[in-house]
Amino acid sequence: MRITSPQNPRIKRLRKLQDRRHRRRLGATLVEGRRFVEEALAAGRTVRQAVYTEAFAASPAGAALLRALAAAGTELAEVPDRLLEAVATTETPQGIVAEVAVDEPAPVGRAWWGRVETAHLPLVLLLDGVQDPGNLGTLLRAAEGLGAAGAVLVPGTVDPYHPRAVRASAGACLRLPLARADAAAEAAASARAAGLQVWLAEAEGSTACWDVDWRQPVLLVVGNEGSGVSPEVAGHATGRVAIPLAGGIGSLNVAMAGTILLYEAARQRALRSAAATRATEGD
Amino acid sequence: MRITSPQNPRIKRLRKLQDRRHRRRLGATLVEGRRFVEEALAAGRTVRQAVYTEAFAASPAGAALLRALAAAGTELAEVPDRLLEAVATTETPQGIVAEVAVDEPAPVGRAWWGRVETAHLPLVLLLDGVQDPGNLGTLLRAAEGLGAAGAVLVPGTVDPYHPRAVRASAGACLRLPLARADAAAEAAASARAAGLQVWLAEAEGSTACWDVDWRQPVLLVVGNEGSGVSPEVAGHATGRVAIPLAGGIGSLNVAMAGTILLYEAARQRALRSAAATRATEGD
Repeated sequence: MRITSPQNPRIKRLRKLQDRRHRRRLGATLVEGRRFVEEALAAGRTVRQAVYTEAFAASPAGAALLRALAAAGTELAEVPDRLLEAVATTETPQGIVAEVAVDEPAPVGRAWWGRVETAHLPLVLLLDGVQDPGNLGTLLRAAEGLGAAGAVLVPGTVDPYHPRAVRASAGACLRLPLARADAAAEAAASARAAGLQVWLAEAEGSTACWDVDWRQPVLLVVGNEGSGVSPEVAGHATGRVAIPLAGGIGSLNVAMAGTILLYEAARQRALRSAAATRATEGD
Repeated sequence: MRITSPQNPRIKRLRKLQDRRHRRRLGATLVEGRRFVEEALAAGRTVRQAVYTEAFAASPAGAALLRALAAAGTELAEVPDRLLEAVATTETPQGIVAEVAVDEPAPVGRAWWGRVETAHLPLVLLLDGVQDPGNLGTLLRAAEGLGAAGAVLVPGTVDPYHPRAVRASAGACLRLPLARADAAAEAAASARAAGLQVWLAEAEGSTACWDVDWRQPVLLVVGNEGSGVSPEVAGHATGRVAIPLAGGIGSLNVAMAGTILLYEAARQRALRSAAATRATEGD
């Protein structure tokens, strides 16, 4: 099938997905470029439709992906370059744009914590007002890569299915278990009730990140780029954790700080596992 | 002074700074927004000229910065909003755009290493083909915040004075000692000759980052977003370091990986300093 009119209903639908209201209504997001569409498919997501250019279909890797999509029941259409550019959110779209079905994050609560607690030593990220889609995506990518069991989002945090968040997450937002809460304090209280410690990432935090014992169930709270973590969360906090910085000139943004804290947790946990393995081998 | 014509030579000069060739020729970069211009001034940089809007001059913080710039000899001009937008590289410029003098990075070599070696346990970052200005800026920001003594750039790495790199670095590119080399292998050889270990950051590296002893002089090499570190550097490497990741699904980008490795070095060094302090106190 070939579409050439910008008025075609499928093209109009893809353009709507640039807007959060429509993403929520349609339960879908835009995924752009071969690698990210491949990852969505590999993550078990339904790729409802995709449009691609003639050059994309002519490339061996492109043709292989189109066959896999056709086999999965995706509606496919070839479009002129200018139409692909019109539906894409990247300046240089890489030959294919797809509508991928996503789930609204589940409400945080006993059922969700039960799911997360099946993870060994759950480490969960609470995103409390992160506004930049690039930062949010980077944090989800770090969370997945460094072994977090999931992430909780609250109003004031950008949509995890914003196309730029999807890209920055390298698809992690399509794989990592996500939950939502009406407020950060509610999520923190819920985590405490489920047996997790609650650590707030704050530039002025009083505990150095390497002095926190991360080898237990933890909710790590990262806040807004400007104003940090919501004050209401403090009542539920185990403590405030900071990354000691050099000099006093340097600073880190929320994505870098969150990545470092997730790494520190992963490092401590890996070394404990290694020690446990050595102890067992020593028996 | 007020400028209203886009043909004004000062406006044309600011627009030229969006281009690398002109930045190099003029020995300057664009710095946008109040906070970053303040930081450039605080870093001791010459702010050659700045244009600002009427609303900026009317705000107390804006007026204070304009007074400081005038005292420092900066040529100032008020411009209509549309002219500020024309010279800015951000979509929403924050009232002021300035031309800030920068030095070309010094050639790497005995003189530069001598300067760096005055740092206690130098940790230096070699940026081998990092192409995205946001990634480069983030890495320079992490390097400064986590106590690196400097960074070396090679051809193929994006200009550290690209306006987007300047912003992502939060001004670190104006403060951190920078050097250049004609090739990454040359920089690595020069670092070895100066007594530094050379560790290559590679996703497939054989040494986990927490198994590297970072408590010694080190050059950390991070590579291109797609192809990684140049093969020619291998002959000068102490080893290849990786961040162990969960699952095998997750991955990190070069800015996140570099940030984590710089953090791991900072952590080990801080803990050694703390231990040394305790030992001294115990005497």
